[in-house]
Amino acid sequence: MERTSTTLTSPSTSARMAQPIPARMRALLKATPAAGAELTEVAVPEVGPRDVLIKIRAASICGTDLHIYAWDAWASGRVKPPLVFGHEFAGDVVAVGPEVTRVPLGAYVAAESHIACNHCHECGHGLQHICRRVRIIGVDRPGAFAQYIAIPEQNAWITSRRFPPEIATIQEPMGNAVHTTLSAPIAGSVVAVFGAGPIGLFAVPISRAAGAAKIITVEPSAFRLQLAGTMGSDILINPLQDNVVHRILEETEGEGVDVVLEMSGNPQAIAQGLQALRFGGHVSLLGIPTRPVEVDLADGVIFKGATVQGISGRRIFETWYQTRGFLDSGMDLSPIITNQLPLEEFATAFDLVRSGNSGKVVLLPNLECDEISG
Amino acid sequence: MERTSTTLTSPSTSARMAQPIPARMRALLKATPAAGAELTEVAVPEVGPRDVLIKIRAASICGTDLHIYAWDAWASGRVKPPLVFGHEFAGDVVAVGPEVTRVPLGAYVAAESHIACNHCHECGHGLQHICRRVRIIGVDRPGAFAQYIAIPEQNAWITSRRFPPEIATIQEPMGNAVHTTLSAPIAGSVVAVFGAGPIGLFAVPISRAAGAAKIITVEPSAFRLQLAGTMGSDILINPLQDNVVHRILEETEGEGVDVVLEMSGNPQAIAQGLQALRFGGHVSLLGIPTRPVEVDLADGVIFKGATVQGISGRRIFETWYQTRGFLDSGMDLSPIITNQLPLEEFATAFDLVRSGNSGKVVLLPNLECDEISG
Amino acid sequence: MERTSTTLTSPSTSARMAQPIPARMRALLKATPAAGAELTEVAVPEVGPRDVLIKIRAASICGTDLHIYAWDAWASGRVKPPLVFGHEFAGDVVAVGPEVTRVPLGAYVAAESHIACNHCHECGHGLQHICRRVRIIGVDRPGAFAQYIAIPEQNAWITSRRFPPEIATIQEPMGNAVHTTLSAPIAGSVVAVFGAGPIGLFAVPISRAAGAAKIITVEPSAFRLQLAGTMGSDILINPLQDNVVHRILEETEGEGVDVVLEMSGNPQAIAQGLQALRFGGHVSLLGIPTRPVEVDLADGVIFKGATVQGISGRRIFETWYQTRGFLDSGMDLSPIITNQLPLEEFATAFDLVRSGNSGKVVLLPNLECDEISG
Amino acid sequence: MERTSTTLTSPSTSARMAQPIPARMRALLKATPAAGAELTEVAVPEVGPRDVLIKIRAASICGTDLHIYAWDAWASGRVKPPLVFGHEFAGDVVAVGPEVTRVPLGAYVAAESHIACNHCHECGHGLQHICRRVRIIGVDRPGAFAQYIAIPEQNAWITSRRFPPEIATIQEPMGNAVHTTLSAPIAGSVVAVFGAGPIGLFAVPISRAAGAAKIITVEPSAFRLQLAGTMGSDILINPLQDNVVHRILEETEGEGVDVVLEMSGNPQAIAQGLQALRFGGHVSLLGIPTRPVEVDLADGVIFKGATVQGISGRRIFETWYQTRGFLDSGMDLSPIITNQLPLEEFATAFDLVRSGNSGKVVLLPNLECDEISG
Repeated sequence: MERTSTTLTSPSTSARMAQPIPARMRALLKATPAAGAELTEVAVPEVGPRDVLIKIRAASICGTDLHIYAWDAWASGRVKPPLVFGHEFAGDVVAVGPEVTRVPLGAYVAAESHIACNHCHECGHGLQHICRRVRIIGVDRPGAFAQYIAIPEQNAWITSRRFPPEIATIQEPMGNAVHTTLSAPIAGSVVAVFGAGPIGLFAVPISRAAGAAKIITVEPSAFRLQLAGTMGSDILINPLQDNVVHRILEETEGEGVDVVLEMSGNPQAIAQGLQALRFGGHVSLLGIPTRPVEVDLADGVIFKGATVQGISGRRIFETWYQTRGFLDSGMDLSPIITNQLPLEEFATAFDLVRSGNSGKVVLLPNLECDEISG
Repeated sequence: MERTSTTLTSPSTSARMAQPIPARMRALLKATPAAGAELTEVAVPEVGPRDVLIKIRAASICGTDLHIYAWDAWASGRVKPPLVFGHEFAGDVVAVGPEVTRVPLGAYVAAESHIACNHCHECGHGLQHICRRVRIIGVDRPGAFAQYIAIPEQNAWITSRRFPPEIATIQEPMGNAVHTTLSAPIAGSVVAVFGAGPIGLFAVPISRAAGAAKIITVEPSAFRLQLAGTMGSDILINPLQDNVVHRILEETEGEGVDVVLEMSGNPQAIAQGLQALRFGGHVSLLGIPTRPVEVDLADGVIFKGATVQGISGRRIFETWYQTRGFLDSGMDLSPIITNQLPLEEFATAFDLVRSGNSGKVVLLPNLECDEISG
Repeated sequence: MERTSTTLTSPSTSARMAQPIPARMRALLKATPAAGAELTEVAVPEVGPRDVLIKIRAASICGTDLHIYAWDAWASGRVKPPLVFGHEFAGDVVAVGPEVTRVPLGAYVAAESHIACNHCHECGHGLQHICRRVRIIGVDRPGAFAQYIAIPEQNAWITSRRFPPEIATIQEPMGNAVHTTLSAPIAGSVVAVFGAGPIGLFAVPISRAAGAAKIITVEPSAFRLQLAGTMGSDILINPLQDNVVHRILEETEGEGVDVVLEMSGNPQAIAQGLQALRFGGHVSLLGIPTRPVEVDLADGVIFKGATVQGISGRRIFETWYQTRGFLDSGMDLSPIITNQLPLEEFATAFDLVRSGNSGKVVLLPNLECDEISG
Repeated sequence: MERTSTTLTSPSTSARMAQPIPARMRALLKATPAAGAELTEVAVPEVGPRDVLIKIRAASICGTDLHIYAWDAWASGRVKPPLVFGHEFAGDVVAVGPEVTRVPLGAYVAAESHIACNHCHECGHGLQHICRRVRIIGVDRPGAFAQYIAIPEQNAWITSRRFPPEIATIQEPMGNAVHTTLSAPIAGSVVAVFGAGPIGLFAVPISRAAGAAKIITVEPSAFRLQLAGTMGSDILINPLQDNVVHRILEETEGEGVDVVLEMSGNPQAIAQGLQALRFGGHVSLLGIPTRPVEVDLADGVIFKGATVQGISGRRIFETWYQTRGFLDSGMDLSPIITNQLPLEEFATAFDLVRSGNSGKVVLLPNLECDEISG
């Protein structure tokens, strides 16, 4: 394969490379402040002194990506087109900046999508995951729906090649589920997962692995509810068909669940979770309501002596180590990955995510790269 | 003093007594399901086999008592007149049932007002303070605005006579403040107390004693706000005069407080507390909103990675030991006790509580007991 | 008062009975302060007002029982013959005292063997498992190697009849393992179990259920080591054959284990555990060394920032609820129960325990009860 | 490039400077592998791209420095002469490397002495204080008994000029005391501090500020014991004169202390601490025994259900924030700083440290800097 214009320019002249790097690449671009996205060619990112350049083998779609694709209120207030989006990915390190010391050329990596400032009060407390000056890959800077991405070395997570790219990429959203689940006392507990999107689905085997006595999933999509059962949920409740609180109390001798993992952001689910919570129980909130929610703090939180924990991102890197531990112990998440498509079929992919008839949908940006990189 | 009709009858015949006990006593009775209360004579309570009978030296007024006195919606749904109310008190053990083994005759005691069932799931987890079958003294059974009270031995807290009755009685509400405050990481933290009723006022010196770097109090009553300053609050904010969130951010270099102690139950205070909270901060909720509250869970809890802890009652007896530790170390709460009145002046006392121009108001049921017990 | 041989005597006259109770029963008696024990007949215990009488269906042998049987230094300093010993058991409630309110006649129960005073500082902190005035069943009062036992209602743990007696009885020692294991952060961790006696064997599936990434067992008995493998231990190390520390470091990329569960009490194992511990790791100590142990606190604890947690008994009843949760979730402990024998074969049973070629050994005191109770 | 002797050489050509920097400086050098040290002139350190250069206003002496000065077994195994030692200091940032982004020129700073690798498992868990590849200032690289020091920006802690240099410098050892103390539950607890060297002395007011009910100090030096009293210790025990365990039990109604802060490293103190510990108590170990210690794990740790926490360094930067919180709240540590001397009087200073008749001893390297910097 001939490449002449392929080497990188300053300040990346001093980057070390594992292979020739093209000057341009295929990427999914949010080109204008409107719905949709455009598959196009853009320059391969430059590699800063502390950056690594990754050739992407898999990039999975997050709910956030759907917000950007659909260009909703949140997206239009945060994202500045043109931008390559996408922030869950895995691939091979093909170039490293001159000050990179930890990640070797050729490493197989996934990535923490939150780039912490390392300087603020939160970072100084080991809380980089809630750094208030965080910059998010694919939201605040170029992302992963592309053949290459450059990220700071500090955000690369070296991954065993035992795990295929579609598993390696989902470590990031699985990390959300690990963080949410392990923030609660799971061993021996009855756990209710509200919302069986991919993160809720991950939470089922994680809860099982962490010792849950019984796992209840609440989800209106029949497809996803069934998938929760496949992943090991003991009780499946469809809120369109059942009285959620009543069913949960039935399953818990009238006492309620020890732990609620709120993955839906749905106000009704939040209310049901608090009603179905045991006295002294724990609620982890990950799902993001789109507006303020009416909460019965007296009966749902105060008289119950409940703990409500807001969860954002993943602990860096405690959560990643825990995630690796679960994968190493043989946890099989492959049923959740319902679709893998080449980057070209992004429209189909986003339709699948939107439909609710999917688990995790993965894009493969370099699947046919030989055909376009010549 | 001659007493003939003073001894107790079955099943208390076997109770051991430290002194002759009259058959009847003066008590403040919620006689009918309506506002107000009636000072009258009732039978001295019988002493069950595991009960202790206490001659009350001081009984302080709680917000709950004001609800019962005023006969609001909560009170009319919970309390069954006729009932002697009041649940904060201290006095001398003058009789003990035959199976009492721990509390000696003559002991000087205060009392945990929540009588736990000891059998439910919560009790089995050492969470007696949120026992779901709890019976509360002065709410679900006869209370302390009276000359005598009988309570289960398990609820009596032996107190050093170094502390006068008006201090001994406030160990119970002080315990609410200790429980709320020590549920949060206080040492080295900036703490905001919302609401400077008696429990909020207690929280100020407790926060100081637990190592708070700075204490901010938010309270609309000028009287109470000043009292918070007397108790050691560094910053005093009157929400009627100041922009609370703006002022707190000013005082914290724009970062917000580490800890919010919510003692008001006021929806606006709850919203301000979440807005003024640092990322990764902790909120302890003790104040009880009268209805569901609109909460910005996304920005106030989830993105901040905040912890919200509902607080009810006192840990039995961890909180009591901690409370004793603070008192032993010399904490002076006497400025908070603004008024002490004989039981007869209950109407004045309740007016004082209602006015906001008071700290803790204490009734003295046996102040003039010789005059009525003959 | 005249009585047939089936009814109980005062103060149990008011006990309610589910069936006729014999006056005498078969029991294994430590009759004299010497090695061995004697199978004999003794009076069925009286039922106090708050006691339940249990007809024992299974009573398992603990290491403590072996100490009493062998009459070692500890036993001779603590136990006062004549005493029926044994403290792990399960059976049916056949009589209840008049003040019993929670446990119904006919209930199927196991028992917490530690009878807490409920009054001391530790009990007042919800730490009944380390009550300093604890009285232990079968050590300080009559035990369970017998057809009947009377225990305070507060110590009975109602158990589902889904679980056979040999599983119901081991909830108590399994609780030791649950308490030890869940005191450490297990999810995603590499865990080393030192000592694969029954409690160590229980710790293997419990660690797995609580999310351990890898479980390493260290045990000199080939029989028990193999059993640890059966229960799911990933790595088996025989210290008689391998360099324990070297092998553990090999298995952990030189970093050591996150958690050590010390179940052996062996000084060498304790030293190896500290050497093989990761920086920031956690050690739970359950095994009891027979004398003071030389510990390298500087390199093993201080520089590593390690946490060492002493474990005694079970949290009452948090641990029991967690244990129930694990059993409810389908944990199969039956391979650990290697032997079940009638009470008559106690000598064989104790030999099995002593040999190391056994897991848990269970006695069945009422297996042939019809033959003797007539 | 031509340069005068006051500017720095490559790779520091691009450093920005607040003032002319001399080429050479006065420093205390461990010149040879033997006892003692030499006051001499050495080159001012070069400033790496991410370094800050600090003109030192105060450098306090730690026990570690005494080990290096005396050249004991530990020192000869770790330190490679020639080396400028000293690692507690404060001063002004007079030059910054080109990639420094957080610390401004002119900042007044103290420093975290542990330079973490940021890459290892421990760093990845927010445990930089126990980074296993840590490099310590003044031990593994040039230190602070000198006029200037260059350190990585990440280790500089910006300090308010409200605090004089002798207070700013002791934030580092005070941090050891904060870390040790706040690892234990202090609020409402009875705390025993074993060893009243400077860190033990700091622990007294920190324990008080964190809510200790009673503070007991055990220390053989009469001078230091008295100083502990000055700092607020309620009970002073000299182990040369008193039976330590007996006295502590007397002071705690026979129950023992809730918390032991072990600051001495003395095996006898460790044994006494475990004996005098309450059931369920907490021991924080900071003092480093010089060899393995015989520990009664059974009675001292296991049966008590005690928690033993090894403490090393300071949490980076949680501990620093907490330390700042205590200083901001008005904690006065000046009585502990018993001596301040110019760098020239280092021999006197080390004699004072060795004698036990001192608290913290501070050296002032630039006291007469005008005389040598011209």
